[in-house]
Amino acid sequence: MKKSIGARTFLYPMPVFIVGTYDDNKKPNICAVAWGGICCSKPPSVTICLRQATYTYGNLKARQAFTISIPPESRVKEADYAGLASGRDVDKFAVAGLTPVASEVVDAPFVKEFPMVLECKVTHIVEIGLHTLFVGEIQDIKVEEDCLTDKGIPDITKIKPFSFAMDSMSYYSIGPFLAPAFAIGKDLMK
Amino acid sequence: MKKSIGARTFLYPMPVFIVGTYDDNKKPNICAVAWGGICCSKPPSVTICLRQATYTYGNLKARQAFTISIPPESRVKEADYAGLASGRDVDKFAVAGLTPVASEVVDAPFVKEFPMVLECKVTHIVEIGLHTLFVGEIQDIKVEEDCLTDKGIPDITKIKPFSFAMDSMSYYSIGPFLAPAFAIGKDLMK
Repeated sequence: MKKSIGARTFLYPMPVFIVGTYDDNKKPNICAVAWGGICCSKPPSVTICLRQATYTYGNLKARQAFTISIPPESRVKEADYAGLASGRDVDKFAVAGLTPVASEVVDAPFVKEFPMVLECKVTHIVEIGLHTLFVGEIQDIKVEEDCLTDKGIPDITKIKPFSFAMDSMSYYSIGPFLAPAFAIGKDLMK
Repeated sequence: MKKSIGARTFLYPMPVFIVGTYDDNKKPNICAVAWGGICCSKPPSVTICLRQATYTYGNLKARQAFTISIPPESRVKEADYAGLASGRDVDKFAVAGLTPVASEVVDAPFVKEFPMVLECKVTHIVEIGLHTLFVGEIQDIKVEEDCLTDKGIPDITKIKPFSFAMDSMSYYSIGPFLAPAFAIGKDLMK
């Protein structure tokens, strides 16, 4: 029997994106974003959603560019910190011991120590309510060579991303392989 | 060393949403959506992104409502099937052996056998390119009672959602607890 829990924001799984931007003085900043994801294949695009009160919001409006660095399990502490402190008060890259790398294709920095990065230009800004949805067109993806398969695509088992569960305010590892996609369901088509 | 892999749509983790809609004849339909997520807290809102060619796209435009049912691991075959067949050709609920339940708050059906459902009214439609982004305001969330904690919130370890990895076209289980959010990063604030 299903029970109503009201209009809230629980959903599974949620990602952990470390969004990189520059401020007015070109100080690199990072913040943690759990609300976003791919939204279009042509042009390849991604969403990130933030409150107007965040430092990153102003940076995005001014620079119209951002990166998404994917933190590996081994950097969960640094990723969590990026969601706790504000770039208004501190240099989060410095405090977290992370290295900003200037993207060559967009006006934003990414995290050197994280294995995968999406470099994006803002194409749409949609005011939803307390949060604003930014759409970024992906200009390039860069992945550490040792996290690529021999076919040159990312390997989730080497990147070791993790997810955020809002229910218990916890991070969870990616678990074991469950089933092949666009394949296991074919049994039902016979 | 990071290697460029071009402008593509790889990102981790991606969800597996089973989106429920009615067609013109009120036939219930489901489709699988990996591109979407929460986008606003007030009003609580969620995105789903689809190609115009899908049957669900027309249903969404006409009905302005949808549900997101979260499939559990044990139903990965049915979830995958929802992404293979088209509601134009078949009754996917019937073929998959799933039961449509009419939402009492929005004009859309959800999947009885899945443990959690979001019931949503369309508030924004944004044409990005090949895909269209729909924003839905969450009217209610319903969860199987045995998948709630004693505090009445969803329990990811009981719901057992899974994620989609586009790299290897695979579904992955949610793995073990990694760290407490908004907590482990506090070490860096001292």
